Amino acid sequence: MIQTIFEHRSIRKYKSDPIPENVLNEVLTAGTRASTTGNMQVYSMVVTKDEAIKEQLWESHFKQDMVKKAPVVITFCADFNRFNKWCEQRKAVPGYDNFLSFTTAAIDALLVSQNVALEAEAHNLGICYLGTTTYMAEKIINILDLPKGVVPITTLVVGYPDETPELTDRLPLDAVVHYEKYTDYTEAAIDKLYAEKEALDSTKELLKVNDKETLAQIFTDNRYKKQDNVHFSNAFLGILEKQGFMNNEQ
Amino acid sequence: MIQTIFEHRSIRKYKSDPIPENVLNEVLTAGTRASTTGNMQVYSMVVTKDEAIKEQLWESHFKQDMVKKAPVVITFCADFNRFNKWCEQRKAVPGYDNFLSFTTAAIDALLVSQNVALEAEAHNLGICYLGTTTYMAEKIINILDLPKGVVPITTLVVGYPDETPELTDRLPLDAVVHYEKYTDYTEAAIDKLYAEKEALDSTKELLKVNDKETLAQIFTDNRYKKQDNVHFSNAFLGILEKQGFMNNEQ
Repeated sequence: MIQTIFEHRSIRKYKSDPIPENVLNEVLTAGTRASTTGNMQVYSMVVTKDEAIKEQLWESHFKQDMVKKAPVVITFCADFNRFNKWCEQRKAVPGYDNFLSFTTAAIDALLVSQNVALEAEAHNLGICYLGTTTYMAEKIINILDLPKGVVPITTLVVGYPDETPELTDRLPLDAVVHYEKYTDYTEAAIDKLYAEKEALDSTKELLKVNDKETLAQIFTDNRYKKQDNVHFSNAFLGILEKQGFMNNEQ
Repeated sequence: MIQTIFEHRSIRKYKSDPIPENVLNEVLTAGTRASTTGNMQVYSMVVTKDEAIKEQLWESHFKQDMVKKAPVVITFCADFNRFNKWCEQRKAVPGYDNFLSFTTAAIDALLVSQNVALEAEAHNLGICYLGTTTYMAEKIINILDLPKGVVPITTLVVGYPDETPELTDRLPLDAVVHYEKYTDYTEAAIDKLYAEKEALDSTKELLKVNDKETLAQIFTDNRYKKQDNVHFSNAFLGILEKQGFMNNEQ
């Protein structure tokens, strides 16, 4: 049993203490041990510590404090640029400027990121994923000088925790596991699977603060709104095009 | 340091021994501890043990033996179906039928999969990721009865190893890490970073067997060909549309 997995909580408050070089190297090396498609390793990790660059990233990530406070920000990218260059230098013609190749590279980058997250936590560091990475991909590309063939897919802030939050709730295992095939959810099943989450004190507090009738409305009306999702969908598809991953014709 | 991370190797030969129920449950529970966007948990794991269904999956996954031999196949899916149903039952109007929402859900599913992979390995199980999942998404959707709002993104075969392979090579850490910003690769850098990989005995053997001049050509001409990538790109984009993730208009 990997204790670190079961003790994970996202950390949003960080001490300013730097991460020792040898620790950071071990954390990044853990990333490289993840499985990747055909062992192509079509990802990159951009490790940012510089205050000025972090400040730009902070702006992109909806000005979440932790991006400035945590000593290290790691941007995980789908990256076929390095592989393409290698092919071209080796009399090989790469055919990786399409949506499948983006998907492949994004999968690589995400498996790597989870290894990095866990290894960091095993060194008593805290981490938090930034979902804003795909929303703000264009700005991040500009800040980090990402060339064609490279798309940021997720970000981790990493540093020593300055808070000790409780484990967050999860739906019961039955909610997310299906056996043999997918069994679609009945109305009764949905009620049952979300009952515990809806009964939490933190949920009641959220409803009061947000003046909403249901927890689901906080997601649909406040946190993850259709108009924003649609806006960022088009922005991200545009980025895939711009970074050279939408040449889907033979 | 998480030893399991550094000892990972993909396993392609399995014993037929079943995985004890309590072990499998702990492995799946480890998955649920991964970070997900807004703690929405917009993923599902479909756990298949049935021989007849596994045989169908085996067909989809390019008839790789291990899919039949390993006792458990877990298909990780981006899943907004459950969340959408919950919203609808709670007077909330979900706006998650777009590309950003697919990306969000795919990220969730992939972080979960890596927790599952590592926790399985910590129990002396072997795993192998199947990249064929996105290629053959349509067939997998049909086999596993995945409804609208659900897209398979990766698969793990899990079981007790019947082989003990060496650790596979990785590019040097410098190849995949950038500091502060992205530093694009010079021709000399590419030569240096790929030198060790190209000098491996296994590479020389591959060149001989495949009758190729360079390792890169084995990737571009044999393993991951442009025509296949383009074909599967369009198939997968079609699946995103069909499963309801391409309504990108306000």
